[in-house]
Amino acid sequence: MFLSELIPMSEVLDILAENQKIMGIETIDLKDSYLRALATAIYSFHDSPPFDKSAMDGYAVIAEDTFGASSNIIKELKIIDQIGAGAFSDKKINNGEAIRIATGAPIPDGANAVLMEEYTITENEGTDDEYIKIHSQVTPGENVAISGEDIKKGDKVVDSNIIIRPQEMGLIASAGVDSIEVYKKPRVKLIITGNELVNPTKNLDKAQIINSNQYVIGSMVESCGANVDISYSQDNFNTVKEILDDSSKDYDLVITTGGTAISKGDVVIDAVDAIGEVLFHGVAIRPGKPVGFGLINETPIFMLSGYPVAAMGQFDAIVRRFLFKMQNIDFNPRMEKREAEVKIYSNLGRTDYIRVFADDEKVRSILSRGSGVIRSMVEANGYIIVDENQEGITKGDIVDVVFFEAMNWNK
Amino acid sequence: MFLSELIPMSEVLDILAENQKIMGIETIDLKDSYLRALATAIYSFHDSPPFDKSAMDGYAVIAEDTFGASSNIIKELKIIDQIGAGAFSDKKINNGEAIRIATGAPIPDGANAVLMEEYTITENEGTDDEYIKIHSQVTPGENVAISGEDIKKGDKVVDSNIIIRPQEMGLIASAGVDSIEVYKKPRVKLIITGNELVNPTKNLDKAQIINSNQYVIGSMVESCGANVDISYSQDNFNTVKEILDDSSKDYDLVITTGGTAISKGDVVIDAVDAIGEVLFHGVAIRPGKPVGFGLINETPIFMLSGYPVAAMGQFDAIVRRFLFKMQNIDFNPRMEKREAEVKIYSNLGRTDYIRVFADDEKVRSILSRGSGVIRSMVEANGYIIVDENQEGITKGDIVDVVFFEAMNWNK
Repeated sequence: MFLSELIPMSEVLDILAENQKIMGIETIDLKDSYLRALATAIYSFHDSPPFDKSAMDGYAVIAEDTFGASSNIIKELKIIDQIGAGAFSDKKINNGEAIRIATGAPIPDGANAVLMEEYTITENEGTDDEYIKIHSQVTPGENVAISGEDIKKGDKVVDSNIIIRPQEMGLIASAGVDSIEVYKKPRVKLIITGNELVNPTKNLDKAQIINSNQYVIGSMVESCGANVDISYSQDNFNTVKEILDDSSKDYDLVITTGGTAISKGDVVIDAVDAIGEVLFHGVAIRPGKPVGFGLINETPIFMLSGYPVAAMGQFDAIVRRFLFKMQNIDFNPRMEKREAEVKIYSNLGRTDYIRVFADDEKVRSILSRGSGVIRSMVEANGYIIVDENQEGITKGDIVDVVFFEAMNWNK
Repeated sequence: MFLSELIPMSEVLDILAENQKIMGIETIDLKDSYLRALATAIYSFHDSPPFDKSAMDGYAVIAEDTFGASSNIIKELKIIDQIGAGAFSDKKINNGEAIRIATGAPIPDGANAVLMEEYTITENEGTDDEYIKIHSQVTPGENVAISGEDIKKGDKVVDSNIIIRPQEMGLIASAGVDSIEVYKKPRVKLIITGNELVNPTKNLDKAQIINSNQYVIGSMVESCGANVDISYSQDNFNTVKEILDDSSKDYDLVITTGGTAISKGDVVIDAVDAIGEVLFHGVAIRPGKPVGFGLINETPIFMLSGYPVAAMGQFDAIVRRFLFKMQNIDFNPRMEKREAEVKIYSNLGRTDYIRVFADDEKVRSILSRGSGVIRSMVEANGYIIVDENQEGITKGDIVDVVFFEAMNWNK
């Protein structure tokens, strides 16, 4: 099959959007929610803090009792109780009185401030003392965290459609919620095709190539927050057709690599065409123009090249955003500005994913001759994406770099 | 215990370096190696490519036979064989001959270039043709990937002490290696202390606080590539001592939160002091100065605050680098330059971890009153770290931002 009519990336994005599949929702324990995609917003059952509490270790006091205290004017208050974390006091403070209080403990009735322990003098470190001497004053409200100052009961505390970080887990817990709705993780079937492929070995026969895509593309699927099972198939039309048909029934998404050997025809493309629909084949990107997309039994199928660097480029340009969106997360990696250290070549009429190495200030392209050169991906730490209307980058230009780590399922 | 003598971060780093523990090494299958820390460098068993191969679908030819061909001057070559991927040809090309060849297949003897399929004309799409007509010329070496151009046998292809990405997995496979040595993942015991703590619930009694640290710090441990088990303990000296002693024997690292309630003493610090050694307690950082570090049975113990935001700050400032280094990975998150949108306050004499939100150009601090305000961590997407010799940041200053995602175990 000739790829004479390459479609532009803009059209690819339209076709993917029309055929985007979104996973169903499941309820999980909050403890298992790290890096899952939250499906429904979280509202708080509580004010947070749930009561006025002390922000310091010290003494709950009536602020006005401390006015005028200084290193020269020592004042004295009577200690009437003490409150540890998790405890509270039934006593009410009157003028001239104080209650020893732990950080986080509820402010007792009558008090309106907390005097830090460091600004007091006691005989026995507070444990058995009847009085404290104070040499500093506090203002009303000082060192008191007011009930509901962080969150009010009924407030929306976390929005839906975000990747859950440690801090969201904490906020959800504080809201009183211990199980949440998340999008199911996509189950992806990766099918590696190619008669020439063998597993890693010290001894290669003539014409054999080591199957590296099973590792590269398999882990890239994981880097999108999805689960992957991997199979191998010979470049045989009926074998490929059968495994595609089975996989499309058992998985949420299918990815293939290889199957474009001229002597046998585009076996993967032909097999998808026979039992499903090829929606595009051939995209104006580099590396990786011979990439395809289709549907079998309504399951999306991405058909990538056999060459690892082409397959990686295709995955990053096309598959990654689809896998993110299956969990209802928009794929918008942060871009960082760097100065081009050298002229970077690119052609009009195609979107170039140029492998680059960027340091803190500058960026340079990683040179490579062929699409099989994985080493160029190892030396690179990101891409510059040059769109179809732009013809290369001049030395000294400020350009946007997408670091590989910013493209992963991780926030 | 008073924290009157806070030690500076520089001293903290020295103490951590002196007591750094590095995990042992284990051998794993390459397929399980994504995001593991490679312990020994990888050398290739093979040239890559292992033979001169075609970089295009087309015809292996003698380049000189094509010289002068153009849309006006059509030349003709005799097809003597065809080579699919994974196959090879025993035939030798002589002048006037061509062999149909698939991308990746070995260049046959006698040929020195590959003419792309697009530049040829055949009657029957190549399958049964005896001759091709060509209307373009190629130079010697064109579309041929030379044996060993990517990697030479014996070359070091991947250095040790890196976090393995998909592309390293591919390169290791291509080197002929299918099992590798990695650092074991640290097994971390997280002990949450605090009488006031309860699991997330709709109904809170007076003085109860929801235990959010089990989620926040638990998932932060995972974000450093380590495994975590979580326990809860009351603020009781003997209970804490016992669980610390047991955990120090069963785990590679122990982290505690809480245990600094004045009414009962610094129960965690006291327990570590009783059965081990406290190496520091109280650091000139904000948030989170009451952080401790010690050893029990030679196992490192980090003692964090009970307040989630203080504990998160302590974890990011102190624990994270230690956990990375346990897998022999230096913790050097990338920093990005942004313009301060507002004046940012900071004090001399302590290292401030200021929670910020940065967009593509600017950065602003996230305001918060107390260290309990998790919401500030949810609104933030990074830190500005202001060291102890610097007094705040002026509006318009260009500052370094560390994005949270750059601090995670992910490349």
